[in-house]
Amino acid sequence: MSAKHPVVIDLKFERREIDAALAGAFAGRIVLRASDPAADLSEARYAVIWRPDPTLFERAPKLEVLFSGGAGVDYILAMPSLPDIPIVRFVDESLTTRMSEWTVLQTLSHLRQVPAYSRQQRDRVWKELSQPEAKDLTVGVMGLGVLGLDTVTKLKVMGFNVVGWSRSRKAIDGVETYNASQLDTFLARTDILIGLLPLTPDTRGIFDAALFSKLRQGGALGKPVFINAGRGGSQVEADVIAALEKGVLGGASLDVFEKEPLPETSPLWQMENVIITPHAASASDVRALFRNSEVQMNAYEAGETLKHVVDRKTGY
Amino acid sequence: MSAKHPVVIDLKFERREIDAALAGAFAGRIVLRASDPAADLSEARYAVIWRPDPTLFERAPKLEVLFSGGAGVDYILAMPSLPDIPIVRFVDESLTTRMSEWTVLQTLSHLRQVPAYSRQQRDRVWKELSQPEAKDLTVGVMGLGVLGLDTVTKLKVMGFNVVGWSRSRKAIDGVETYNASQLDTFLARTDILIGLLPLTPDTRGIFDAALFSKLRQGGALGKPVFINAGRGGSQVEADVIAALEKGVLGGASLDVFEKEPLPETSPLWQMENVIITPHAASASDVRALFRNSEVQMNAYEAGETLKHVVDRKTGY
Repeated sequence: MSAKHPVVIDLKFERREIDAALAGAFAGRIVLRASDPAADLSEARYAVIWRPDPTLFERAPKLEVLFSGGAGVDYILAMPSLPDIPIVRFVDESLTTRMSEWTVLQTLSHLRQVPAYSRQQRDRVWKELSQPEAKDLTVGVMGLGVLGLDTVTKLKVMGFNVVGWSRSRKAIDGVETYNASQLDTFLARTDILIGLLPLTPDTRGIFDAALFSKLRQGGALGKPVFINAGRGGSQVEADVIAALEKGVLGGASLDVFEKEPLPETSPLWQMENVIITPHAASASDVRALFRNSEVQMNAYEAGETLKHVVDRKTGY
Repeated sequence: MSAKHPVVIDLKFERREIDAALAGAFAGRIVLRASDPAADLSEARYAVIWRPDPTLFERAPKLEVLFSGGAGVDYILAMPSLPDIPIVRFVDESLTTRMSEWTVLQTLSHLRQVPAYSRQQRDRVWKELSQPEAKDLTVGVMGLGVLGLDTVTKLKVMGFNVVGWSRSRKAIDGVETYNASQLDTFLARTDILIGLLPLTPDTRGIFDAALFSKLRQGGALGKPVFINAGRGGSQVEADVIAALEKGVLGGASLDVFEKEPLPETSPLWQMENVIITPHAASASDVRALFRNSEVQMNAYEAGETLKHVVDRKTGY
């Protein structure tokens, strides 16, 4: 049996949560904390990271595999001194389920006019609003990875028509899908747009005025709705705001922003029919992260192939 | 072929909606409007009704079948001069789907702490809250008719543990169910309680202080949540308010009330973690109502048995 190599942890999560999850994790391995400036990371072969210190790669020159603490890896790919070693994405049932809780909640909230009913409640107004049902609307999901597929499945169960878009077309049973070149056709059918895209050079700023103007107008909700739980860098926030002001968009649910935390001065906080959450749509379960990376480390040391490795050309 | 007998319409819905739905409905039949005081209803055999005038049965003494415009029929059974003829419940896919949209929306809203995040948004506060996931919670559904079953199925897809309760136990694949005598056991497991009960002598006031006190305390959300989309008469509103004030309940979503519209003076409008909608959880699609009752009238005249007939002993 091969030796169990040391692992370094550099996660900007809550300290208490990491401590609790480390108890019992990585059996037989030396676990080093990058947050300890005295720690000697020189022999570490693995790093489990989320927004790591830029000095990590200097302190740990023998790293062989990076394990990302989140579904997105754009923050790793942007690091200046990134070594040419495999980066493993975090794929986890809990991460996926939580994301779908959020996307289904937001889609239903706009379908069932939650912002309008909240205002009525605040004003003690009893008034039933004219109400389309799920089957009267088409939800377009951009990004058909693990998260996008789960959202598609659950929205279909709730009765929505669902269409899907990804760079290269994916076949999904019972769902019409489109590829990069068919974006306009996809948008023209979409009443509620859900962004679940990774941040790559191709997707940076993809949600802009031009895109919003191509969404279906005059559907059962009157105006289209934009929901984003992918990455803030994919949206041009000034264009989101302008589209809402001009009525190109009728509403939005945003969990991610160009700058996080969302500045207090942003008009988005108080706009009508806009729902804001603080990058909380999904959350990495640290225990699951450690369990998954430990399984992969053991497999890797047994000569097996790593799973969920990022393709640096596509960025995900 | 037998004659097509006249039908009287007495629906307290929006006039415009009824007019639109009547176009093309009840082919070959005389359609009479009870709202027209000059209309001669004496030969009408069928009535499609929602909160009809008390004079209806005097004006239409030859009625053979009543078709209810809503899922609940308590308002019919309470009518003083109700003739002893079959009452047909309105069972419709659209009615069911809309109800599940609302119950899933409300359940997810409490899971994902929507009232707390709304307050944070109002105050421009960026703060992630500690967040259980669906599988950490058990939702208990009281009432396992068509509506309850659809809600159970969809909540399970969303990842919740679901248990069910009905007067006489119903077997549901993959769901633990309880009968009337096992209510306490059912409640002790329940973090989020959903009421989808018909209003009957047995269910009047069933949601009271004693019942709330038996719900599970200290679950993943801390305190239990009460969601009611059945009938307002099933809840003791003073007890709901007291349970929320005392922290026996941590939140509520209410679509139905003892008195509707909910009086402006009710404290429920402004209570923390309480979501109010104006008896709008589901809605009868009038076209579907007319289509369904027309199909049954034709079948009845062809000598077939009526479907979805109310059992007056149980009240549903």
